[in-house]
Amino acid sequence: MSKKIMTNGTIMTMDAENRLIKKGAIAFEDGQITFVGETPSDLSSYDEIIDVDGDYVLPGLVNTHGHASMSLLRGYADDLPLQQWLEEKMWPIEATYTKDHAKWGTNLSIIEMLRTGTTTFVDMYDNMDEVAMAVDAAGIRARLCRGMIGFGSEELRQSKLEEASSFARNWNNQANGRITTMMSPHSPYTCAPDFIEKIVSKAVELNLPIHIHMSETQSEVELNVREYGERPVKHLEKLGMFEQPTLVAHAVHVEDWEMDILAKYDVKVSNNIISNLKLASGIAPLPALLSKGITVSLGTDSSASNNNLDLFEELKQVAMLYKGVHNDATLIPAEKALQMATIHGAEAIWLDDQIGSLEVGKQADFIVMNTKQAFYQPAHNPISHLVYSGSGRDVKDVYVQGKQVVKNGECVTVDEERVIFEVNRLSQKF
Amino acid sequence: MSKKIMTNGTIMTMDAENRLIKKGAIAFEDGQITFVGETPSDLSSYDEIIDVDGDYVLPGLVNTHGHASMSLLRGYADDLPLQQWLEEKMWPIEATYTKDHAKWGTNLSIIEMLRTGTTTFVDMYDNMDEVAMAVDAAGIRARLCRGMIGFGSEELRQSKLEEASSFARNWNNQANGRITTMMSPHSPYTCAPDFIEKIVSKAVELNLPIHIHMSETQSEVELNVREYGERPVKHLEKLGMFEQPTLVAHAVHVEDWEMDILAKYDVKVSNNIISNLKLASGIAPLPALLSKGITVSLGTDSSASNNNLDLFEELKQVAMLYKGVHNDATLIPAEKALQMATIHGAEAIWLDDQIGSLEVGKQADFIVMNTKQAFYQPAHNPISHLVYSGSGRDVKDVYVQGKQVVKNGECVTVDEERVIFEVNRLSQKF
Repeated sequence: MSKKIMTNGTIMTMDAENRLIKKGAIAFEDGQITFVGETPSDLSSYDEIIDVDGDYVLPGLVNTHGHASMSLLRGYADDLPLQQWLEEKMWPIEATYTKDHAKWGTNLSIIEMLRTGTTTFVDMYDNMDEVAMAVDAAGIRARLCRGMIGFGSEELRQSKLEEASSFARNWNNQANGRITTMMSPHSPYTCAPDFIEKIVSKAVELNLPIHIHMSETQSEVELNVREYGERPVKHLEKLGMFEQPTLVAHAVHVEDWEMDILAKYDVKVSNNIISNLKLASGIAPLPALLSKGITVSLGTDSSASNNNLDLFEELKQVAMLYKGVHNDATLIPAEKALQMATIHGAEAIWLDDQIGSLEVGKQADFIVMNTKQAFYQPAHNPISHLVYSGSGRDVKDVYVQGKQVVKNGECVTVDEERVIFEVNRLSQKF
Repeated sequence: MSKKIMTNGTIMTMDAENRLIKKGAIAFEDGQITFVGETPSDLSSYDEIIDVDGDYVLPGLVNTHGHASMSLLRGYADDLPLQQWLEEKMWPIEATYTKDHAKWGTNLSIIEMLRTGTTTFVDMYDNMDEVAMAVDAAGIRARLCRGMIGFGSEELRQSKLEEASSFARNWNNQANGRITTMMSPHSPYTCAPDFIEKIVSKAVELNLPIHIHMSETQSEVELNVREYGERPVKHLEKLGMFEQPTLVAHAVHVEDWEMDILAKYDVKVSNNIISNLKLASGIAPLPALLSKGITVSLGTDSSASNNNLDLFEELKQVAMLYKGVHNDATLIPAEKALQMATIHGAEAIWLDDQIGSLEVGKQADFIVMNTKQAFYQPAHNPISHLVYSGSGRDVKDVYVQGKQVVKNGECVTVDEERVIFEVNRLSQKF
């Protein structure tokens, strides 16, 4: 593979010093970053030189919670509370889902994510082979798991566990390392304790992390207390889950002492701020979670509850909401929000040795923003402009493992027109 | 002027029945709408037929509070509380402002607004002749006022009042009716009661409405009580302001009985949800204001506290935030949010006989969204997609008074490159 270098960019490294390099360059070869710094005067050793003329260059964003197949349900049901939305709208229609739905729904989601600068996403759903094949073909990076809902017969649960285990085993470190896997009980309120214990054992056996929904709504926490005598955090701790690396999605309704437990085990959190607002689930105690030293990343959840997968919206929302709610304009400054969308996202899925910042030796997963627009003027403060004034729609070029997957705002690895045709064909039958 | 018709659009009329017309058409001539309905089979009477092939067509958005000149200060100071931000950052730098700053800052703001589908905006600032000339040239619509801060000598106040009055008189109904004016004391905490009374008298004399900042922060309300023995609403009522049509910006800290006063006088409100969050001013009681029957519209405030002028962000934010804050996913549904950004915006500035909805006889101010993108698929519910998944960046074409001002995402009436050059030239001196 040839030696390439991007020159004269505004480089947001997101490294340990949060270096911002004006007139900076990033070089890459064989999918890895080989240089980050000021643009060198001698460029003769490079095969391809791309001058980005001041545009922002930053690590691809990491979306740590979602259900890509569900994009077929975007706008199918809005303005309803979570349980009604799930039980009356989502679950009945999802029961009719086939591999075809998973395939085209996932492709639609991948287009949205790549177009808006997400280069790595977490997915928890079923028909995961379809999801993995779509990830492989599109050239995006993903940490995938077959989410297990424990309702129904013992045979059904056993077959789900086998399916989830074989998926996790077969696809881990595939697609040139772009796909990694996890084991995933859906939630404490949909999986009985013994089923969760079996899944945890399997995760230990396969040496894989765990991903689970936890404490998204107040009613789910109350149900947990009624059924098992404990709030979800203590309940999962007792079931041994947190001995294994765990990423919990939501963590909206967690008390101070529960955060101490999460911190003790280094449990990672995916904050899904927009989905939580839209479903009226509540507002997670983000400043407190951060002050405990917990790694908090950002997730979109599915486009059925968001309703898009543009992580730039989460980026701005975390930097806005807590200021207003806590009457403190200094909370979650722009730089912290951007860390949550990049390096903390990588840490939350145990891939921070490979992605999440622009550093020599890491994977060449990065994005270029078109900043020659009014929204980015005057050029006072690039990180402020990116977080407070930018949009995922401004992402121009996207590279994963050094390969260009978005060019001038168009996906080059997925046939957008075909995908739009297929999702409308499928959704007309709902 | 020729007879034009847009055909096969998804028309969001925002009329009294909130009609959504699939395969709809809108015709216009001499700047006015002459037809709205299903696409006619016979189009032979039209000089120009534009087939938008399913794209959304809706009224241009109305941004009811802002300070266009301040876009030069985007990203100049973030993550600070309002008073510190104003007193230590904004006011000192604004004191150095010249007509040149007003001219180029306003042009930058107009580009942002037109590009993201705002066709009418409210502006309160100084050097307003520059603002009005920029509005005239760009072909946008605006309701403008010279905001008066009452500090300093009596002579200074008098000269401001004269300047504000002559501006309001000279520019009202100019630019082919696209410019209207108001009279504007900055706020109760920057204008003494007698100065406010003088401004109100002048508004009565000129038969113009009043625009004022009110109850944006808790500390400003407390100051009002200390200084004048009343909270701002009662204080302004006593000064006779509400006898004249009034638009208040913010109304964040208003109690139930204060809302009754606002409702009694039909005082209009501009909700500035994003600016209020970012400056940690608080969260306005929007559901209560609406339940009192008060007209609530949306404003961006300036890009120094937002940090952009894309009203689609306010549109989504009002439909999200209150659900999460009040634990009620049915609050401010998508359609209500869109009304706030369109027809309620027009009502808030007393122009609803001319703009805010697509109806025969109204002005041809409308926008076309590029919905042939993943974010708008599958085609379940256009208004949901627009509010929850859309972005101002998806606005493709913009018309004001039947004249195209944005074409394929580019402003055709303002030289974007020149404006970007000038704002950076000016801001380098800060």
